[in-house]
Amino acid sequence: MATELKDLTKRSEDYSKWYNELVVKAELAEQADVRGCMVIRPYGYAIWEKMQRVLDDMFKETGVQNAYFPLLIPKSFLSREAEHVEGFAKECAVVTHYRLKTNETHDGVVVDPTAKLEEELIIRPTSETIIWNTYKNWIKSYRDLPILCNQWCNVMRWEMRTRLFLRTSEFLWQEGHTAHATREEAEERAKQMLKVYAKFAEEYMAVPVIQGVKSETERFAGALDTYTIEAMMQDGKALQSGTSHFLGQNFGKAFDVQFLNKENKTEYAWATSWGVSTRLMGALIMTHSDDNGLVLPPALAPIQVVIIPIGKSDQMAALDEKAEAIVKNLKALGVSVKYDNADNKRPGFKFADYELKGVPVRLVLGARDLEKGLVEVMRRDTLEKENVSIDGIEQYVKNLLDDIQQNIYKKALDYRNAHIYECDNYEEFKERVKDGGFFLCHWDGTEETEAKIKEDTQATIRCVPFMFEQTEGVDMVSGKPAKHRVLIARAY
Amino acid sequence: MATELKDLTKRSEDYSKWYNELVVKAELAEQADVRGCMVIRPYGYAIWEKMQRVLDDMFKETGVQNAYFPLLIPKSFLSREAEHVEGFAKECAVVTHYRLKTNETHDGVVVDPTAKLEEELIIRPTSETIIWNTYKNWIKSYRDLPILCNQWCNVMRWEMRTRLFLRTSEFLWQEGHTAHATREEAEERAKQMLKVYAKFAEEYMAVPVIQGVKSETERFAGALDTYTIEAMMQDGKALQSGTSHFLGQNFGKAFDVQFLNKENKTEYAWATSWGVSTRLMGALIMTHSDDNGLVLPPALAPIQVVIIPIGKSDQMAALDEKAEAIVKNLKALGVSVKYDNADNKRPGFKFADYELKGVPVRLVLGARDLEKGLVEVMRRDTLEKENVSIDGIEQYVKNLLDDIQQNIYKKALDYRNAHIYECDNYEEFKERVKDGGFFLCHWDGTEETEAKIKEDTQATIRCVPFMFEQTEGVDMVSGKPAKHRVLIARAY
Repeated sequence: MATELKDLTKRSEDYSKWYNELVVKAELAEQADVRGCMVIRPYGYAIWEKMQRVLDDMFKETGVQNAYFPLLIPKSFLSREAEHVEGFAKECAVVTHYRLKTNETHDGVVVDPTAKLEEELIIRPTSETIIWNTYKNWIKSYRDLPILCNQWCNVMRWEMRTRLFLRTSEFLWQEGHTAHATREEAEERAKQMLKVYAKFAEEYMAVPVIQGVKSETERFAGALDTYTIEAMMQDGKALQSGTSHFLGQNFGKAFDVQFLNKENKTEYAWATSWGVSTRLMGALIMTHSDDNGLVLPPALAPIQVVIIPIGKSDQMAALDEKAEAIVKNLKALGVSVKYDNADNKRPGFKFADYELKGVPVRLVLGARDLEKGLVEVMRRDTLEKENVSIDGIEQYVKNLLDDIQQNIYKKALDYRNAHIYECDNYEEFKERVKDGGFFLCHWDGTEETEAKIKEDTQATIRCVPFMFEQTEGVDMVSGKPAKHRVLIARAY
Repeated sequence: MATELKDLTKRSEDYSKWYNELVVKAELAEQADVRGCMVIRPYGYAIWEKMQRVLDDMFKETGVQNAYFPLLIPKSFLSREAEHVEGFAKECAVVTHYRLKTNETHDGVVVDPTAKLEEELIIRPTSETIIWNTYKNWIKSYRDLPILCNQWCNVMRWEMRTRLFLRTSEFLWQEGHTAHATREEAEERAKQMLKVYAKFAEEYMAVPVIQGVKSETERFAGALDTYTIEAMMQDGKALQSGTSHFLGQNFGKAFDVQFLNKENKTEYAWATSWGVSTRLMGALIMTHSDDNGLVLPPALAPIQVVIIPIGKSDQMAALDEKAEAIVKNLKALGVSVKYDNADNKRPGFKFADYELKGVPVRLVLGARDLEKGLVEVMRRDTLEKENVSIDGIEQYVKNLLDDIQQNIYKKALDYRNAHIYECDNYEEFKERVKDGGFFLCHWDGTEETEAKIKEDTQATIRCVPFMFEQTEGVDMVSGKPAKHRVLIARAY
């Protein structure tokens, strides 16, 4: 499984190809022999596991509990909520039979026509319907509320054009589904979870995001409001990285989830849902990585430090001994470290391989340096090398990891901020948007304007951002009055 | 969601009904409105999460890495391994279409006949086929081996008769799939993972198990050997709690996974697979619980200690203060603790509810006891109460949790050992097996004898156990020579 680094396409040559190659070469994921599905390889899954662990702890801090609901949804459930069925029932995997039988030539299996389901089952594209059908039995009184459930699971949407992590037919995600006694509490929860996502993206993934609310057109099917975090990739395109929906009473009404409120009156329950998926892997890769391969934030790197010895065979015992002491001390500091003294690979190969895999810090233990009490330290984000005293190397490395985490965040933030433009002229916008970037433009709030922008430029309104001070103005397309600027960009 | 404890059927009245009721009343799981599928509720899922965490750490200790493979398997993959297709292709969920469309009356959706798949896809009943199809691309040389992958996921088998946790159409599990360069290494790995399962069952679940190897009839479809751990429930029936399979080169050959060995010769890779599922929840519940509800081992209890205050409203502030200090100290000792001072439920209700939920230790903080420096401690396993000095209560509780863990294991072990019988007479066997228990009987090794026992008594050969010293003898059914005794029991 040796990987020749020189084969990696440069970002400047073909950003899209660079991404596709990197995902495969770094052994993160690959296309499966099932249309549109992926295999997440151990190295990629280890990053996803770290993300899961951090997010799960953050959810639980807010009172959320995990649960599990069925994979299959009766077809009729999807029709209950009018907008929801429009958004999700169309492209989905449909189970129609429950048995195979041996074929006539006895060399294969065929569907048994006698085993046809009375009602077809859909592989969940999202679980609002099956979950609210369950909540109906759990919620009788305001005392049963709130319900704060989350599940980590697989979902399936029959996508026509797929890309590893960014858009696959099957993907892994978490979906939180909460039920509340009041509108205010539900709206508050939807906003709270968006903040959790933003904090995770910025502090762990080192990916700066813009929080905002979607336009009506871009809302989740069945939501009254969809909140979003939008990240900028190195090609200036936006990547929607997490969404949180205030669902009003739409699902409460669709599944007849009523409760007695404090005034002893019957009321429909209020809902939110919120999710992030393996798409975050795409955001992570595209934000930081370079032409040498992955650059991973130390907070999510499966291996934070790799130690590679260089010496003649009679020097290896001493190098091993020294390395093992460093490994032990680093582990005691909570640093994950790998010592790679495999003798069937050249050091040069190892260097390239760990660069490709984005290991944040590399230590090279050379026999001669060791005599001088030195070790070579390389940081993956800048590729800078320096010789450092081996005394206290562990604390030095730990500080360096913190520094890398901060540095790659700052680098991404600077890049993004340098590519956000206020724009008031549609001709100028059409020209500049081709090169990527986020555009802050006044919008009259109509679907017509939104559709025209999309048709002319492929760019979409990503959100009404919260972070910028808003002023009234004139819509750059229609010339009509506009209440605020929206964030417009081409997006993944 | 108040639960009336008195409604719980007694084990002696109807063991099966007791189990079904307990799972629902303790809010572990419930039937979903999808045939044969379950909803795992937050309290049940919290136990499953604890199991996952421990097992996952144990797997990783042995070098295993997690990954993720597709949910859907092309139908033709199942036919590649002849025995495997017999075992798994028959009762499974079949995806035939990928789109729905609005119906003619515009009030629902129907399957779009134009969106028929060329080849049907099966929801994985187990993933050997899709994984070995992937391994083909990963394995070229002995240097690529071993591959030690595991995935935590959902699987589906279209079961006709289902019971919560014990047998459901969809269930959650982990499936490990390893590839090796030699037969010896693969066999060693299959045995190693069985030992991991046994250690987990005994040390964490407090469920004693008998390790052994399955007869040919009871083997996994496609395996050369299936190792098993068998636990005894309180009705004397066996519950197969985990299996580990040595698959030989069957899947290597079926998916053409060849590698160059050290002698530079081409060879097929050797395989194992091993899994445990949410069925373990059934084993956990049925081994320890009693007529008052769940009894959970402290090592897996989501809440290890509950503290309930009793006092008049003007005494509550002082009780809260004391309780919060105990909570803080217990958490510092790594104990998970809940302080329940909700004022909308009577203490008697709380007592019954936490008993039902199997919380291992209950502290009652009474205003009057507190004046004397005492607190009432109840242990769930024996329901014994005693008044304990509040000074040092935290360490007392921690020791008590250890004691409960040991005690429920010992109780289960004593029960099981008292219900294992050597039996050499078939008439006697037929009579006694009705009352449950494990029977150690000589077996001639033939399928005929095995089938006759099953037909006559519904009991099956659970395994050739490793733990008992084996002696030759005479088959109790056929009278023919037998090499060893096998473990026979009725099973879930």
